[in-house]
Amino acid sequence: MEIRDIIPYAKGEREVDLLVTNARLINVFSGTIEPQTIAIAQGQVVGFGEYPAQEVIDLQERFLAPGLIDAHCHIESSMVGIREYVKAVLPHGVTTAVTDFHEIANVMGTRGIRLMREGMGATPFNLYCMLPSCVPATPLETSGAEIRAEDLKDLMAEEWVRGLGEMMNFPGVIHGDPEVLKKISMTQAHGKRVDGHAPGLNGKELAAYIAAGIASDHECTTRGEAEEKLNQGMYIMIREGSTAKNLEELIPIVTPANACRCMFVTDDRHPADLIAEGGIDHCVRKAIRLGLDPVIALQMATINPARYFPLPEIGGIAPGYRADLVVLEDLKEFRISQVFQAGRLVADNGTILPRVIDEKKVKAENTVHLPKFSAERFRITAQGARAKVIELVPQQIITKKGSHEVKTHDGLAVADPQQDILKIAVVERHKGTGNIGLGFVKGFGLKEGAIASSVAHDSHNIIVVGAEDEAMAQAVHGIAEIQGGLIAVRDGKTLASLPLPIGGLMSDQSIEEVRDALNRLHQKVKEMGCTLEEPFMALSFLALPVIPELKITDRGLVDVTRFEIVPLFGEA
Amino acid sequence: MEIRDIIPYAKGEREVDLLVTNARLINVFSGTIEPQTIAIAQGQVVGFGEYPAQEVIDLQERFLAPGLIDAHCHIESSMVGIREYVKAVLPHGVTTAVTDFHEIANVMGTRGIRLMREGMGATPFNLYCMLPSCVPATPLETSGAEIRAEDLKDLMAEEWVRGLGEMMNFPGVIHGDPEVLKKISMTQAHGKRVDGHAPGLNGKELAAYIAAGIASDHECTTRGEAEEKLNQGMYIMIREGSTAKNLEELIPIVTPANACRCMFVTDDRHPADLIAEGGIDHCVRKAIRLGLDPVIALQMATINPARYFPLPEIGGIAPGYRADLVVLEDLKEFRISQVFQAGRLVADNGTILPRVIDEKKVKAENTVHLPKFSAERFRITAQGARAKVIELVPQQIITKKGSHEVKTHDGLAVADPQQDILKIAVVERHKGTGNIGLGFVKGFGLKEGAIASSVAHDSHNIIVVGAEDEAMAQAVHGIAEIQGGLIAVRDGKTLASLPLPIGGLMSDQSIEEVRDALNRLHQKVKEMGCTLEEPFMALSFLALPVIPELKITDRGLVDVTRFEIVPLFGEA
Repeated sequence: MEIRDIIPYAKGEREVDLLVTNARLINVFSGTIEPQTIAIAQGQVVGFGEYPAQEVIDLQERFLAPGLIDAHCHIESSMVGIREYVKAVLPHGVTTAVTDFHEIANVMGTRGIRLMREGMGATPFNLYCMLPSCVPATPLETSGAEIRAEDLKDLMAEEWVRGLGEMMNFPGVIHGDPEVLKKISMTQAHGKRVDGHAPGLNGKELAAYIAAGIASDHECTTRGEAEEKLNQGMYIMIREGSTAKNLEELIPIVTPANACRCMFVTDDRHPADLIAEGGIDHCVRKAIRLGLDPVIALQMATINPARYFPLPEIGGIAPGYRADLVVLEDLKEFRISQVFQAGRLVADNGTILPRVIDEKKVKAENTVHLPKFSAERFRITAQGARAKVIELVPQQIITKKGSHEVKTHDGLAVADPQQDILKIAVVERHKGTGNIGLGFVKGFGLKEGAIASSVAHDSHNIIVVGAEDEAMAQAVHGIAEIQGGLIAVRDGKTLASLPLPIGGLMSDQSIEEVRDALNRLHQKVKEMGCTLEEPFMALSFLALPVIPELKITDRGLVDVTRFEIVPLFGEA
Repeated sequence: MEIRDIIPYAKGEREVDLLVTNARLINVFSGTIEPQTIAIAQGQVVGFGEYPAQEVIDLQERFLAPGLIDAHCHIESSMVGIREYVKAVLPHGVTTAVTDFHEIANVMGTRGIRLMREGMGATPFNLYCMLPSCVPATPLETSGAEIRAEDLKDLMAEEWVRGLGEMMNFPGVIHGDPEVLKKISMTQAHGKRVDGHAPGLNGKELAAYIAAGIASDHECTTRGEAEEKLNQGMYIMIREGSTAKNLEELIPIVTPANACRCMFVTDDRHPADLIAEGGIDHCVRKAIRLGLDPVIALQMATINPARYFPLPEIGGIAPGYRADLVVLEDLKEFRISQVFQAGRLVADNGTILPRVIDEKKVKAENTVHLPKFSAERFRITAQGARAKVIELVPQQIITKKGSHEVKTHDGLAVADPQQDILKIAVVERHKGTGNIGLGFVKGFGLKEGAIASSVAHDSHNIIVVGAEDEAMAQAVHGIAEIQGGLIAVRDGKTLASLPLPIGGLMSDQSIEEVRDALNRLHQKVKEMGCTLEEPFMALSFLALPVIPELKITDRGLVDVTRFEIVPLFGEA
């Protein structure tokens, strides 16, 4: 609303659209809970108290809080398009996400960011973006795009872009990589934020990282780490994702004196979790259960991120603010009943209301570009008795460098399901280079067949694990046929698959369908002998060469500690 | 420092300039006090802990806090140029002021703002500006300049300008005055702040003012008022000036849950107070004495205003921040020993160090433009037995509307010192219009002569009070001769004067000389029978037609409640 239009509403001279009466308002400015009546016009809060109104909603002393803000997430991790993502989170009270389109950008570059934005349509949700800072994540892999500072110039000037996303290339910052510093300087010249990502960084290297202008961190895993970062002026984003869960460890560091520098983020949340537990509401709920004051927990999910970025129109309930409102049945269980976005009721009792989300399908675009090849490309000539083997660590995304005797056959090193030593390969799928990196992996437990995925952080090539070369080749070609996705193959047949035609990362179907398809896949992979709860998740992190110790990309096996491609045979 | 230059310092690869050891660091981010060593290079904090350093200062466990920030002030009220102002406040730990050059702008327009900025030279101080929003303050007076939205365009884009200064024209906001809204929109388009000034505004009018985008208020005088504004999303600036003192009343509203939305301001501080008590340090000291937690008090004087404006380079002690540091002997008495600005020791034990302030005199420029006139211009033809009389209220800037029988002589109404009814006049001094507003005033107690001043809020015409027309004319001409200032005249002689040649508001001499000259003036005015502690202060507010009840401008007597010029004779 223009200023001149809001004034007559605020003065009570014009009938407002909605009056919310008998609320117990959680006032995130004052930190108090007060009985209140809230007047709303044209999607904005215009005043407190009695107003002439077209519609009145009596909250009967239920609590009213501002809409929740996810201060850092990758929407791609929900494996659905933005409309479906919003459909999942709105009933959970999340009305705003600050997302880093790091995944789609690795596949499609800045064009992917624009496509995601366009995918929003008229969805009632506040979408803000931090621009991916590290595409590709490393020079040891082939990604679909490379984003240089120059490429971010136009986007950085846009209002919905609030800065530069998690600067995971902390060695680049610390060593003064000119291209990295250029991205930081450009962001600062716009007065915008640079988010951090520096797990375990401390001491003088941390000082250098902070001095370079990195404002926040969401990778703290211990209290000591979070406290060091907080003391040195960083904003702390406490993360509770689907895999990375730091909330229980970190909540004890939050005090009334530092709370305004803390906020919640989900980073990566998968479809089943989003539907069942929610996103930021889950963080608030868990924090309250762990003993944090509910008002502080709500400040961390609303006004704190709004001030950090800043997002001046949201994060609180006061004249001039967007009327993003969450009605709560209680503060202890943090049960959400209604959710309003820009003054409009969008969800009730955990269910999105009809016609809130435009059902128009997202336009998918094939990003899987793969030359045809035969199973022979997966052959490994034995060049020694022992080979390096990627060893999974249960529930972790780190791996161990193993060294095992490999089974050979006619001079070829082959998979040995008896010993749980399987073949793993990463097939470049962006540019048709025909690159294939080959290796061995231990920990999946597959007895037969192969599984493959085009979700493979961060470059999202096709990653495949199998007991037989034929099945592996078939799985990879199967992925190409569905234009990206997840697949399980056995005995020459596709047992189950989940097409992810949006960048090979996201489905164009509903989030419930994605959840169900994933469940089916998990069931089939279990029948193939796999012992992992989330085999595709485990698979997706094996191509990420910034997480120790041994990983694989389309260029070959990567010793992460040495940060170089290493030969497959020989000791680890 | 460029990012690439600070990194090697932070990593400890290059010798830093200064290492401050054995500090008890007041960490405004975490709200804790921790033993710490701070490394400083090229004026910035680069890291914590041991570093190779050219110089080491051992604090022997004294406290170390960030430099203090005055979030709203009018430097002109110190009656000296910026260098002298800084000389006074730096030893008090104030390293940053966000100033609204409202006074000089009323005299010289935006050119006055630029001249003030230039007057800084290389002074080691952080000067930020909020652009005057209301010049002139009302249409009932003649100011030296008029500033429209268009005139602020260039300045608003400058980095040192953080927004639009106190929007005292709150009726203009509430009634949607297009020129006022244009100023607000322009500020918001730059992502900058609009400060408020709305004494006593509440209810729906307050909602309209806030909804229009006004972010802060420094005019709260009661707890209820401050709480209402805070609850509706305003930032609260708690003021402790030389005249307006609200700190004792307002400190009880500050809680750990809302403190990060509160800060301290001085608004107007006079030379003697600045020298003796200081500025923001006085607020912190008094708040602590009143029971506020010292760390919260310090946050309100440092990181809170830094986040509000925002001023991302200051307000805390952490890598990348400017090394503005205050060494404290204790937290209870808040005794300041050393002060560092940008890593350089600038004050020690209450004294500014030699060569910190460039002694170059400010270039004064005559802004007093007055046609010669005779004492006859002060004659008042008696048009009735009773006249309206401005009645002073001790210690307040409001006045009462009085009505008294006036002494007449030869058909003229004359001053009657026996009854303490004196003549008062405001002489237009900017444009040579020859405008003179005439009236009567009660409360000065002058028995003879006249006193005059070119400091007369907000238009700063010449205001004069006297027992005789001749003395009044002589006082006004005396002001013109010294190109603005304060003066006391008796028996055809100037008893004392303080020239204020910078805009008729500020001296080009040292702040100590100004203080001493003011003391001499006060002494002389006392000898003339005046009973007021600060007669020139009282005088300066009598021309301010936004403060009730009866005031006077160059256009005549103003009934503030009716907001119009009223005839002198008749009942009040």
